[in-house]
Amino acid sequence: MIYEILTRVRQQKPLVHHITNWVTIYDCANITRMVGALPVMAHAKEESPDMAAIASSLVLNIGTLTPELVESMILAGKSANSRGIPVVLDAVGVGATRLRDEKARDILDAVKIGVIKGNSSEIARLAGEDVKTRGVEATEIGVDRFKTCISLVRSRSATVVMTGEQDIVTDGTTVYIIRNGHRLMGKIVGTGCMAASVIGAFAGVESDYARAATAGLVCFEIAAELAAFDSSGPGTFKPKLFDEVYNLDRIKVNRMAKYDERKAADY
Amino acid sequence: MIYEILTRVRQQKPLVHHITNWVTIYDCANITRMVGALPVMAHAKEESPDMAAIASSLVLNIGTLTPELVESMILAGKSANSRGIPVVLDAVGVGATRLRDEKARDILDAVKIGVIKGNSSEIARLAGEDVKTRGVEATEIGVDRFKTCISLVRSRSATVVMTGEQDIVTDGTTVYIIRNGHRLMGKIVGTGCMAASVIGAFAGVESDYARAATAGLVCFEIAAELAAFDSSGPGTFKPKLFDEVYNLDRIKVNRMAKYDERKAADY
Amino acid sequence: MIYEILTRVRQQKPLVHHITNWVTIYDCANITRMVGALPVMAHAKEESPDMAAIASSLVLNIGTLTPELVESMILAGKSANSRGIPVVLDAVGVGATRLRDEKARDILDAVKIGVIKGNSSEIARLAGEDVKTRGVEATEIGVDRFKTCISLVRSRSATVVMTGEQDIVTDGTTVYIIRNGHRLMGKIVGTGCMAASVIGAFAGVESDYARAATAGLVCFEIAAELAAFDSSGPGTFKPKLFDEVYNLDRIKVNRMAKYDERKAADY
Repeated sequence: MIYEILTRVRQQKPLVHHITNWVTIYDCANITRMVGALPVMAHAKEESPDMAAIASSLVLNIGTLTPELVESMILAGKSANSRGIPVVLDAVGVGATRLRDEKARDILDAVKIGVIKGNSSEIARLAGEDVKTRGVEATEIGVDRFKTCISLVRSRSATVVMTGEQDIVTDGTTVYIIRNGHRLMGKIVGTGCMAASVIGAFAGVESDYARAATAGLVCFEIAAELAAFDSSGPGTFKPKLFDEVYNLDRIKVNRMAKYDERKAADY
Repeated sequence: MIYEILTRVRQQKPLVHHITNWVTIYDCANITRMVGALPVMAHAKEESPDMAAIASSLVLNIGTLTPELVESMILAGKSANSRGIPVVLDAVGVGATRLRDEKARDILDAVKIGVIKGNSSEIARLAGEDVKTRGVEATEIGVDRFKTCISLVRSRSATVVMTGEQDIVTDGTTVYIIRNGHRLMGKIVGTGCMAASVIGAFAGVESDYARAATAGLVCFEIAAELAAFDSSGPGTFKPKLFDEVYNLDRIKVNRMAKYDERKAADY
Repeated sequence: MIYEILTRVRQQKPLVHHITNWVTIYDCANITRMVGALPVMAHAKEESPDMAAIASSLVLNIGTLTPELVESMILAGKSANSRGIPVVLDAVGVGATRLRDEKARDILDAVKIGVIKGNSSEIARLAGEDVKTRGVEATEIGVDRFKTCISLVRSRSATVVMTGEQDIVTDGTTVYIIRNGHRLMGKIVGTGCMAASVIGAFAGVESDYARAATAGLVCFEIAAELAAFDSSGPGTFKPKLFDEVYNLDRIKVNRMAKYDERKAADY
């Protein structure tokens, strides 16, 4: 399944419209290109609905949100919704400030989100748990991760991706647990945002969002394992990560993919 | 001609004021430094005319435009015009949305642009052709590239640069066709924007803009060929590209430059 | 002293809130992570006071300032002040335009700044000298550097950091002169901004700001010396710089640190 969806990304070259943060915006655009898709970043509210309308998917990332930017996200999101274009929300920093909590809720109330992605404390917060995020960093959530994901799936009718040492992807029916990845991913800024962009690219060619998200994350994290192999630290790891995503092939993907597929009812 | 202009950039260190996009802003600044010039990025409308006034050239890039940013571009452009400072416009994404079409026209109507740069569909759109750009990606334009460039030269009295596998540079009298470059340039985000910054740096020391643009592109693309030589992919290619631009010397430039100079009347 | 403070950064992982520029925002965030701290970038005025309130330090960088951004900086700065959280100001480009001069003064008037950092012409300008900055580049200031620093310490009751081939750090009592670093640092965009982020991280764990700034700069510049060792140019130097900051250990720091500590009264 994994390599087949990657192949479709490379062949169909989905246009992935981003309204994202100013820290990792380059990395979001570049990883989209590395995976075989085409990025476009357009955040003016006078343009974002038009750009979303010609895109294959829309990625919203609130890492450096302002009220104006969120207004544009909602306009673009509605434009995408009206055309059946999948929308991914990366809930960066939810749980850290009141603004992030409120605006994430505004987006989720106004736009039908296909995939909600966050780290453990961000997802827990969206699911209504009383947890705090430290800046944009995950904190221990002290609640059952699977139950938290399923709870958010139910309340928002979305596929939920909770990243961490093992990633959880679930649409309420199936649960995927991804065991690929490398600890260097957590040492640099940007891997979380890039993961959302990859999910956006895969969701642009695969309508089963849980499969799309799983395939995207497995590919990205296999590349990270390969990149870490001969890096002397997190700095040199990053350009190699781009190389390895670009150079993924059937053998690497099939041999290295490590994920489980289970029934959500088992949790 | 090529190496001589590069030498002037390195000696005179022109200050290249950018009002550019948030995706590749770092790359624009850094490539300007690599080529020997000094970048400054200043987009507040309360400041941009003052900064343009002390600059050697001004680069406007509409990759992530907003109406406010374009307002600042126009103020800076007029400030540059009043002092004879060259202005380069990188028409990123023109043809993709109404806003880009309108705002590019607004800039061209309000500011005397010295060099208009774009990919094939962006230039065709500015020249009045009925083509569509997919996000920020070139599409097949189905019209004669040279005639399109000349048409835009005439309507806007500007030097026109159409990038592609072979770049076309023309001021309506002379046509330069540049055959340097490497396919990896098209695999990463940012090479187009960086090319505009390099052109800005060269136009800061050479008043024949067609020669300036040609020299800048040839240097940049020779560096890309050298960088590609021992890259394992697009990710590691990029830091090497910066190295190679910085390390260009007379022998590399003179041996590797590949471009033709023709009369525009021949087309 | 140096390695001991670095160790505290790595153990305490201070949260460093940045309101910074759009050019080097990624580098600011990533170097903060490399040094062992946690970055968060949040510039909306509706959020910045809340984020500053949970941070260990606040870094303000006016590289791409707008009046709105400065408004948010002042709100965040006051929030930090009211809780005793240290604030670092990187006065990028002061002396180049009227807006930068005015807004730097506004920030210094409204917020108690713990550490003011700039290159020679930026610091001289803040100290009231009649010097010009060329874009964001240092110019020869033609005045005594030490006296200029001390003068600014007095007028603003802040620790002052003047970067250059030798960095000067002083709180009016002690003067540190730092002789680490490598010329490649001055060849790429971003090392100055990253230095401010490192100072922010160190000030988050050490209340003697002159010691904190000195320790941060020495560590950063030792890493630069190590990174330059096998770089083929400024492009490959940068990812290695991140690696070397991340990989600093007691032996490297203790063997390579080069700085003098003197009494300010001697100047």
